[in-house]
Amino acid sequence: MAVFRKMFPLIMVIMALLAINSDKACAGDPDMLQDVCVADLTSRATNNTFGSLVTGANVMAIPGLNTLGVSMARIDYAPGGINPPHLHPRATEMIYVLQGELDVGFITTANVLVAKHIVQGEVFVFPRGLVHFQKNNGHMPAAVIAGFNSQLAGTQSIATTLFAATPAPGVPNDILAQAFQIGTMQVQQIKAKFAPRN
Amino acid sequence: MAVFRKMFPLIMVIMALLAINSDKACAGDPDMLQDVCVADLTSRATNNTFGSLVTGANVMAIPGLNTLGVSMARIDYAPGGINPPHLHPRATEMIYVLQGELDVGFITTANVLVAKHIVQGEVFVFPRGLVHFQKNNGHMPAAVIAGFNSQLAGTQSIATTLFAATPAPGVPNDILAQAFQIGTMQVQQIKAKFAPRN
Amino acid sequence: MAVFRKMFPLIMVIMALLAINSDKACAGDPDMLQDVCVADLTSRATNNTFGSLVTGANVMAIPGLNTLGVSMARIDYAPGGINPPHLHPRATEMIYVLQGELDVGFITTANVLVAKHIVQGEVFVFPRGLVHFQKNNGHMPAAVIAGFNSQLAGTQSIATTLFAATPAPGVPNDILAQAFQIGTMQVQQIKAKFAPRN
Amino acid sequence: MAVFRKMFPLIMVIMALLAINSDKACAGDPDMLQDVCVADLTSRATNNTFGSLVTGANVMAIPGLNTLGVSMARIDYAPGGINPPHLHPRATEMIYVLQGELDVGFITTANVLVAKHIVQGEVFVFPRGLVHFQKNNGHMPAAVIAGFNSQLAGTQSIATTLFAATPAPGVPNDILAQAFQIGTMQVQQIKAKFAPRN
Amino acid sequence: MAVFRKMFPLIMVIMALLAINSDKACAGDPDMLQDVCVADLTSRATNNTFGSLVTGANVMAIPGLNTLGVSMARIDYAPGGINPPHLHPRATEMIYVLQGELDVGFITTANVLVAKHIVQGEVFVFPRGLVHFQKNNGHMPAAVIAGFNSQLAGTQSIATTLFAATPAPGVPNDILAQAFQIGTMQVQQIKAKFAPRN
Amino acid sequence: MAVFRKMFPLIMVIMALLAINSDKACAGDPDMLQDVCVADLTSRATNNTFGSLVTGANVMAIPGLNTLGVSMARIDYAPGGINPPHLHPRATEMIYVLQGELDVGFITTANVLVAKHIVQGEVFVFPRGLVHFQKNNGHMPAAVIAGFNSQLAGTQSIATTLFAATPAPGVPNDILAQAFQIGTMQVQQIKAKFAPRN
Repeated sequence: MAVFRKMFPLIMVIMALLAINSDKACAGDPDMLQDVCVADLTSRATNNTFGSLVTGANVMAIPGLNTLGVSMARIDYAPGGINPPHLHPRATEMIYVLQGELDVGFITTANVLVAKHIVQGEVFVFPRGLVHFQKNNGHMPAAVIAGFNSQLAGTQSIATTLFAATPAPGVPNDILAQAFQIGTMQVQQIKAKFAPRN
Repeated sequence: MAVFRKMFPLIMVIMALLAINSDKACAGDPDMLQDVCVADLTSRATNNTFGSLVTGANVMAIPGLNTLGVSMARIDYAPGGINPPHLHPRATEMIYVLQGELDVGFITTANVLVAKHIVQGEVFVFPRGLVHFQKNNGHMPAAVIAGFNSQLAGTQSIATTLFAATPAPGVPNDILAQAFQIGTMQVQQIKAKFAPRN
Repeated sequence: MAVFRKMFPLIMVIMALLAINSDKACAGDPDMLQDVCVADLTSRATNNTFGSLVTGANVMAIPGLNTLGVSMARIDYAPGGINPPHLHPRATEMIYVLQGELDVGFITTANVLVAKHIVQGEVFVFPRGLVHFQKNNGHMPAAVIAGFNSQLAGTQSIATTLFAATPAPGVPNDILAQAFQIGTMQVQQIKAKFAPRN
Repeated sequence: MAVFRKMFPLIMVIMALLAINSDKACAGDPDMLQDVCVADLTSRATNNTFGSLVTGANVMAIPGLNTLGVSMARIDYAPGGINPPHLHPRATEMIYVLQGELDVGFITTANVLVAKHIVQGEVFVFPRGLVHFQKNNGHMPAAVIAGFNSQLAGTQSIATTLFAATPAPGVPNDILAQAFQIGTMQVQQIKAKFAPRN
Repeated sequence: MAVFRKMFPLIMVIMALLAINSDKACAGDPDMLQDVCVADLTSRATNNTFGSLVTGANVMAIPGLNTLGVSMARIDYAPGGINPPHLHPRATEMIYVLQGELDVGFITTANVLVAKHIVQGEVFVFPRGLVHFQKNNGHMPAAVIAGFNSQLAGTQSIATTLFAATPAPGVPNDILAQAFQIGTMQVQQIKAKFAPRN
Repeated sequence: MAVFRKMFPLIMVIMALLAINSDKACAGDPDMLQDVCVADLTSRATNNTFGSLVTGANVMAIPGLNTLGVSMARIDYAPGGINPPHLHPRATEMIYVLQGELDVGFITTANVLVAKHIVQGEVFVFPRGLVHFQKNNGHMPAAVIAGFNSQLAGTQSIATTLFAATPAPGVPNDILAQAFQIGTMQVQQIKAKFAPRN
């Protein structure tokens, strides 16, 4: 409630400011923004499969970002947690380590891995559309703030994309078997471990 | 030789035309272009791991494309051949089936598979930065012509990117094991089947 | 009917995928797309004034192309047929010769003609906004697939633009006479041979 | 000399300001800029074939415009003079009538002529890449200032492009004859009246 | 009335031409355009605080400019009048002096002043987003035509922005005092001289 | 030393990755980047005129950012410190509060102030080219991480731009006096308090 009141002037005025383009604004959810705003540096929410949590502050959460071409996200990592290999089709990402340490990397179109160990206060960049990942190999929780040069970067998490796309059965087993040079039984075993994310 | 002579006027004049920007032109290889030009509809060259061959006509092959923002490619598929899941970070791709039939698809950022069976003369589109694939489930060779809205779309083949990035050992095994929910031994087995592509 | 069913998933999902922008989608005509899809390599349809037929697969035919920035077209040429001098205000065009042979060319802003004889399997590029043409000087039908870096390249056929613009009488005769250094009677004779294309 | 001194600070500082991009700057000719600056409203220079003179202030004349995406031009028209049908591949043009009156128009990709009679102080716009023209049907000299949304709009004058491209013989006679539905003899007569412009 | 009739064809046809994008068109005011069209070179209207008058011909005045990325403005200056320090967030501006003489300048991000004295017929450029100004130090009225590479450049007049933003009291006094190193009383005195512009 | 070694792979490989464009890379200064990386949350460095310190991680510091279109910065504020009214000509800025609380705002081209009180974990956005500011009215140090959608946003601090531009005397006193409606003596007093920043 208080949150919505704080959001109100920002959203309404920017909409007015951008009247010519703002017919494309999305429905906003201030609570989602508030999730970003909560600065809980020891995130219990990372207690999941991958041990990480991405909280986005993009145009889906903040209609006022419409046409502004920028967004941010906060990512929390439990010890040993990863942000598995994924890509953003519409933006380059730059991260700043809020706390802890991370092993990060991306692969180029020349198939070269660019990896680095970064600690609190350091930055790293993941070029638009390239597969990248982060892992917290430390013993303490880690967190980063990410900046994107798009109001809606979009995310495609590789394993989920290939083994859990909807509607089931998603990507045909024979294609995955050929692509990864494994048996269709292995493909089915991997698919069994993933639930579709909508 | 004859090839170079044919290329010469095109390259030289466009370079002049684009003098303001052409300091970015790449070294051209007319032979590679000629590979595109050979209209061999029964490609023996598809006799490889995936049973497909991509021949690109982009700015690396044709310096004259510099600053023009467009390129093409021809893809040949043996019966049962696939163009495994991959993405282009810098371009949307549209294909036209020259011959045969293909099962094609891409996955959206909402993790929805958009798949279609297309035959000779039909078209399909793969949005920029999204994972997509094609498979020839027919009994005859298949081929497509692809158009890209970039002079250098770039390609990232998922399995090769994750399991064969250079320098070895590429993406850490533990990250791949966590991402695909498999054992590190399985990761090593998959890696063993891939040789790095430079 | 079958066509529409095949189009359905592609269009609907891409629209969902692009929800933020898709308020600009045009009404689609799957039949027009099907015209592209029919791979009839000996086109009776080229039996017209110029002996060529352009079939477009752009956003007017495929709403799903909206915001994707790419489109294609198939052009068929009867022996002796031409695609008369024209330009595309919103896109660079790259062509791949499906069959036959063509004499193609474009003129630069330095008023230099860049021309080439291309055969089956070869490619050529026409920079955005520059006047260009193709002619089939062979004895067999010819056909190309064109890729554009715009979802709606737009076309302006010079002779039709200057001598058959609507509403009649179109471009004033005195301006055409002065521009081409001919008499107004000649201008009227040329206009008499052109019917407006809407 | 005085001119160069006046240009000096503008060019040097903007180059510094744009250091990251300015490796693309062209050799500048301050005298050419000065030609623009001379506000001679009764231009003897319009005593030519078309009775008009275009003086450009673009990046070729002012290196400091590099990366700024804007340029201007002044066009003078003798009584009865025309700026014959032409197009700009890289920019939309907006004109402001300095003096006199003009009949102006452009043709859309739907082949519709958009024409208007404009007088001193009025404005008109010519969309990027579309064929357009101006004619001074008044008894006094006319002049306009044009603004372009490109540092180098480029110009393609249709008649010159089609009938006087270099190297000779330029566009093949048979193509022009077919395109305009005239005889090759008429084509040769028109070509004879045009001298190539380099 | 006559004005609207003249505007009608331009607006309607361009809207049709740009049907795919024109849902973003603004309500147009032909009278405002007419203000531009009146070529009154001795503007009584410059009898105001700053002694200058800006008359814009942008997409708010001419819906047909929508998506065309260009606009113009006419600026009149009384003797001693200024167009106070301001910026355009969405466009680079290029000016052509219609009459009189002006002292113009902009400041770079390296905080270097680029200033020049320009007279009738000369041009100058103000890069996008940089603070700039013009002053007529001559004894005669002056006027310029400005070209912008945006259909709606937007303007932020520094003094008005900082000392007269709405709703009152606008920018907090303590921030202005700290920023300009002056007392809050001086801040209040300056604010008292400005009335908000909506 | 250790810093440079960590930077090395990132810079070298991205340069390779971007070979076509990287002729525009700037000389990098890893130490400057390291300044960003030091996560000192109680910044003694804010002991200056404004009580704030901006540390940029842009293409001037990280050549590898060239062509990637994104950058970041860390801003530290002492209690009572401000980041005085300024603008970025080439980017929209989004901030995330690392610690403390801030009063932030920007003014629209409709001259409306959009202001908000934000605390640790909250975000706010400043549209490209619009004047904005931040002030720490709390009793504790504050800090934010800023993301920009440009590799070199550029900054123009209003007071410094208007009263301390180089070479001296910068913007003419009479123009500033007229613009702010103050006396030239007041202008000189303000200028006396500012030293040029190069």
